[in-house]
Amino acid sequence: MAAPLTHPCIVDGWFMEKSSMWPGQAMSLKVEEILHVEKSKYQDVLVFQSANYGNVLVLDNVIQATERDEFSYQEMITHLAMNSHPCPKKHECVEEATLVDIDEAVPRVSKKYLPNMAIGFAHPKVKVHIGDGFEFLKDKINQYDVIITDSSDPDGPAESLFGPDFFQLLKNALTEKGVFSTQGECMWLHLPLIRKVKDFCKNLYPQVEYAYTSIPTYPSGQIGHIMCSKDPNANLREPLRSFTKEQEDKLCRYYNSDVHKAAFILPQFAKKALYE
Amino acid sequence: MAAPLTHPCIVDGWFMEKSSMWPGQAMSLKVEEILHVEKSKYQDVLVFQSANYGNVLVLDNVIQATERDEFSYQEMITHLAMNSHPCPKKHECVEEATLVDIDEAVPRVSKKYLPNMAIGFAHPKVKVHIGDGFEFLKDKINQYDVIITDSSDPDGPAESLFGPDFFQLLKNALTEKGVFSTQGECMWLHLPLIRKVKDFCKNLYPQVEYAYTSIPTYPSGQIGHIMCSKDPNANLREPLRSFTKEQEDKLCRYYNSDVHKAAFILPQFAKKALYE
Repeated sequence: MAAPLTHPCIVDGWFMEKSSMWPGQAMSLKVEEILHVEKSKYQDVLVFQSANYGNVLVLDNVIQATERDEFSYQEMITHLAMNSHPCPKKHECVEEATLVDIDEAVPRVSKKYLPNMAIGFAHPKVKVHIGDGFEFLKDKINQYDVIITDSSDPDGPAESLFGPDFFQLLKNALTEKGVFSTQGECMWLHLPLIRKVKDFCKNLYPQVEYAYTSIPTYPSGQIGHIMCSKDPNANLREPLRSFTKEQEDKLCRYYNSDVHKAAFILPQFAKKALYE
Repeated sequence: MAAPLTHPCIVDGWFMEKSSMWPGQAMSLKVEEILHVEKSKYQDVLVFQSANYGNVLVLDNVIQATERDEFSYQEMITHLAMNSHPCPKKHECVEEATLVDIDEAVPRVSKKYLPNMAIGFAHPKVKVHIGDGFEFLKDKINQYDVIITDSSDPDGPAESLFGPDFFQLLKNALTEKGVFSTQGECMWLHLPLIRKVKDFCKNLYPQVEYAYTSIPTYPSGQIGHIMCSKDPNANLREPLRSFTKEQEDKLCRYYNSDVHKAAFILPQFAKKALYE
């Protein structure tokens, strides 16, 4: 019988998410069983079954997704962008969706331990490319209606995804009225970083906005989305297309048209820091 | 020299907020120094200086306020109600504000350790009554334009503040177009409780709504507000009165008119659970 798995972030049956990116605070989740521990080529990969949040994926000691609340972030980073495009060939009308991940370990363990979240891998229109997203985009010109960057934080393999060169590559890869959304960090923790990214996006795109989603297991309970459009007449704050009530009921647990609009309304401190 | 203070929730220099009200999860804050430990007549009172959130007030092992983020909850529970009343005699035009707390220890330690939060105690229009809020309201008829209930959770001294009798007392105490807001727990954790309270409010008030505020140090990163008006024509979702831009800049770090409206826009799962 193999020895039970262990991980340095799990002590006395609790996973504790300490990081220099959010000093002095840590979300903790009670662990039922450690399911997977691996040093992949790029990062530390941990999956555990939690007591109350289902299975949890952790990369470099940072919670990436739990089965209980992943829907909020996933729906918002996707539908905010998709419904801000006049006709993305990737909703009902999607022709092809390409997922790019630098680390094959992430789709591999997601399929095994987060099967509901990973269900999209089985869709016939989905292609998967294992490789560096930055490198992947270099030769893509005028090719994608919508690009969604679900990156981890900037102090690991995703560092290049927060620099101005990446946002230039996104611009080249997008079609004429192309839209992107990217993980935009938390206004309670990282306003200077968000402001910096927003400012260099402003040099590249006519429309740049910051929205946010509530999610209990990300630091401080919420996460932002930096969104840009190449269309000077786009208004990212208002969905261009809406789901029907029936579609909302079937497809969504977090997003709806009103939530889309409200996601851009920032508390006074964040509005002043990002828009003045 | 006195021995350093200790508290059972502080281990290895971290305060960890475990509770049966949010099983399997816990926010942790790094502690610099324990400032105050007391068993008051009603509850366990702890104040510590945190590494990154300023001074922190904890009652019965639950975080009540930190100097870094208290403004979000305090502004919202107050201004949502105040700006939903046509002319509360308690903003600029306030004639008198009465604070009621069952436990004298709470205002006492707040004045000492959270002086910026407690600054209102010095206002000439403020009266303080130490006693049970439930008892206090029993003989108050048609007396208050706005009542704000900043209660702790329902499994301690605040239990009676979540029952239907309390909401009947509020109704009697409010003037004709009176409005109240009360701490309404978190949609990510307590939807059945919120629905129950909202339903019995519906039997008493013509207008009942649920709004929420983002706040990192409350469980799951947000807290709700149950709001009611005695005016059948009131629309709590739209502020009746607005601050000027200058007032917003001076008075507010979280609230503004747009935030007021957005606070009532709920994610699809919560909207369905509370409004359908």
